[in-house]
Order: sequence, then C-alpha cells, then structure tokens
Amino acid sequence: MPATKRAEAQTHRHVHRSGKDNIARRLSRIEGQVRGLNKMVEEDRYCVDILTQIAAVRSALDAVALQLLRGHAHGCVQDAIRSGHGDPAIDELLAVVEKFAR
Amino acid sequence: MPATKRAEAQTHRHVHRSGKDNIARRLSRIEGQVRGLNKMVEEDRYCVDILTQIAAVRSALDAVALQLLRGHAHGCVQDAIRSGHGDPAIDELLAVVEKFAR
Amino acid sequence: MPATKRAEAQTHRHVHRSGKDNIARRLSRIEGQVRGLNKMVEEDRYCVDILTQIAAVRSALDAVALQLLRGHAHGCVQDAIRSGHGDPAIDELLAVVEKFAR
Amino acid sequence: MPATKRAEAQTHRHVHRSGKDNIARRLSRIEGQVRGLNKMVEEDRYCVDILTQIAAVRSALDAVALQLLRGHAHGCVQDAIRSGHGDPAIDELLAVVEKFAR
Repeated sequence: MPATKRAEAQTHRHVHRSGKDNIARRLSRIEGQVRGLNKMVEEDRYCVDILTQIAAVRSALDAVALQLLRGHAHGCVQDAIRSGHGDPAIDELLAVVEKFAR
Repeated sequence: MPATKRAEAQTHRHVHRSGKDNIARRLSRIEGQVRGLNKMVEEDRYCVDILTQIAAVRSALDAVALQLLRGHAHGCVQDAIRSGHGDPAIDELLAVVEKFAR
Repeated sequence: MPATKRAEAQTHRHVHRSGKDNIARRLSRIEGQVRGLNKMVEEDRYCVDILTQIAAVRSALDAVALQLLRGHAHGCVQDAIRSGHGDPAIDELLAVVEKFAR
Repeated sequence: MPATKRAEAQTHRHVHRSGKDNIARRLSRIEGQVRGLNKMVEEDRYCVDILTQIAAVRSALDAVALQLLRGHAHGCVQDAIRSGHGDPAIDELLAVVEKFAR
C-alpha cells in the first residue's frame, strides 16, 4: 500500500473497542503461555509435552490473526473498495494471508 | 507413549544444557514480541502491521519447535530405538509432527 | 453465501480467459506430477524422494489456489462490495482462506 | 544422506506391499480429483467451489505423505538407527518434515 493510502487508512480506528479488549485479553493469555513454555524448559520437562504446548500457542495466535483479519477485511478493505481504491487494499490483504498459508 | 515408558524416558535430561539456554533465550524474546503485539493493539496500530508481526512470532515459535524436535529425535527417540522400544517413541514423534503440519 | 447471492455471482465469468488458460495448464502439469508419484511408488522408489515430490505438488497446488484467490478477491468480492452486499462475500472469502491456513 | 548410505537404504523394499497398494489407490484418486479441478475451471465453475476442492486435494495429499512418513520412520529410520548410523537418517527425516510444516 502506498504511504498516502496507508496514512489515510490509519485515520480511522482499526480495531473496534469491544474486539480490541477481546484481542488484548487473548494476547495476554498467549504471553502467559509463552512464559509457561520457558518454565517447562527450565524444569526440564519432557520435550513432547513442550512441543504439544507450543502447538497450542500457535493455534491461539492463529485464532487472534484470523479475528484481526476478519475485522480488517470487513472494515478497512471494504471501505477502501467503496471509496474506489480497493485493488491495493486487496493486494495487501492477500500478501498477509500468504504469510499465514505458508 | 505408555506411562511406564514415559517415566523411563523422563529419567534422562531432555534438553541439553547449551541447547536449553538457547531455547530459553528464544522463548524470552518471543514473550517480549507477544507483549509488543499487545502494545500495538493498545496503540491502535494498523491491522496489517499487527498481522505481519503475528506471522513473525509464529515463525519464531516454529523455529523453536523444530530445534526441540531435532533434539528429541536424535536423543530420546534414538535411545528408545536402541533399547528396543522404538515403535511407541516413533508414533509419539509423528503425532507431534502432525500437530505442526496442520 | 445465500443461494440467491450465489446464483447472482455465478452470472458473470469467474476466471478470466487468459488466467483460465494459465490455470488449466498448471493443473494439467500437477495431474502429470501426481501420475508421476504413482509411478515412483510402483517402482519402489526411496520414500524420502516420494515425500519431497509430494511437497512439490502441494506447493504447486497452493500457487494455483493463490492465483484463483487473487482473481476472486479482485473480481467477485470487489463487485459484491460495490453493489452493497460485501459482508457475505468477505465471510465466504475468509472461510476459504481458513481452509488453507490450517 | 550420503550416496553410499542411500544406496544401502535402497536395497530393501521401501513401501510394504499392502501399504503400497493402498497408497497407489489413494494417488489414483487424487489424480482423478486434479483432473476434476481442471474440468471445473473449464466449465467456469464458481472460484470458491474450486478453491474448496483444491483444499480437499491438498488434505488427501497430506494424508498420503503422513502414511509414507510413518512407514519410513518405522522402517528405514529405525533400521538405520539399529545399524548404528541413525543421525543422518534422522536429519533426512526432519528435513522432509520441515518441507510440510511450512
């Protein structure tokens, strides 16, 4: 997205209030899970248990990403399309989707 | 893995000292990155920037998982095979791999 | 997407002519690669070589999916948003993205 | 895996007879599904339906890969470990796993 478009997109709220609290809560929980992983390593816990827990953290992160993606598509991307510059917004959306599909 | 096999596997060190420090360091960095994500949400940063950063955290977690997996396969799994009960250790390894291949 | 919306969306061409030929060509190549996999199994080739080739087929399929996704987002989804029923089109897009991010 | 080790590994059967038939049958079905995808494109079917079908083919391929991986780990890798050269076999296994975890 060119800098001007981007600045423009940044003038409105990206994450709606209620969704924002929910996402902040989920990220705090994920932060605690990562701290827990470090403790598991410190206590020399069984590798497979640590790996299983890493997979859980990864799923939790993916769920947050999906919620953000949903808000972004219904919000910013839809607004951009309505105001006639949808193509760069769609390309940007797909570029970020690709980062997760790898 | 049955409980007895598991207890047995747990008698030796799972994560070698040097690898352990390295993994602990990486997990601390990831914990900081997740805290940074929460700050980005709080500051109402652009969704796509948050999503890009979530993808980076996910890659960092995957790299830690791969390092643990490598240590586990060369250590515990190889030991299990040598002492004649490799099959459950291999099944357990593949089950955890499957969690990441999704 | 509700059936009426879907019927409506299906009145216009989904895959543009040039893109269509390109996608057909890529799918034909993938079909040949899968046939090649079967031959590798028949000839009792080394498992790791077969697995490496399966990973290549998977990447080729993902690339086709991404191209279709791109065309769909810039075409159908953008049209739906412009004509005022963007939300179901966006939900449908994200549902299909989720199938690949797993 | 060094060439000599590889040649050695290639002296025994990689895919057991029964598993081989099963895998060949699954790959034939996947080949048919890819041919079906091409037909969907030709008939100008709705992109989202094509994408959903591509995701199904991808899952079917992953299931075949997992079955091969399982046979390889219990067979070749276990044999390699027992005959004292497990480390390169494990590295090779993890390298192929990594291709799928992306």
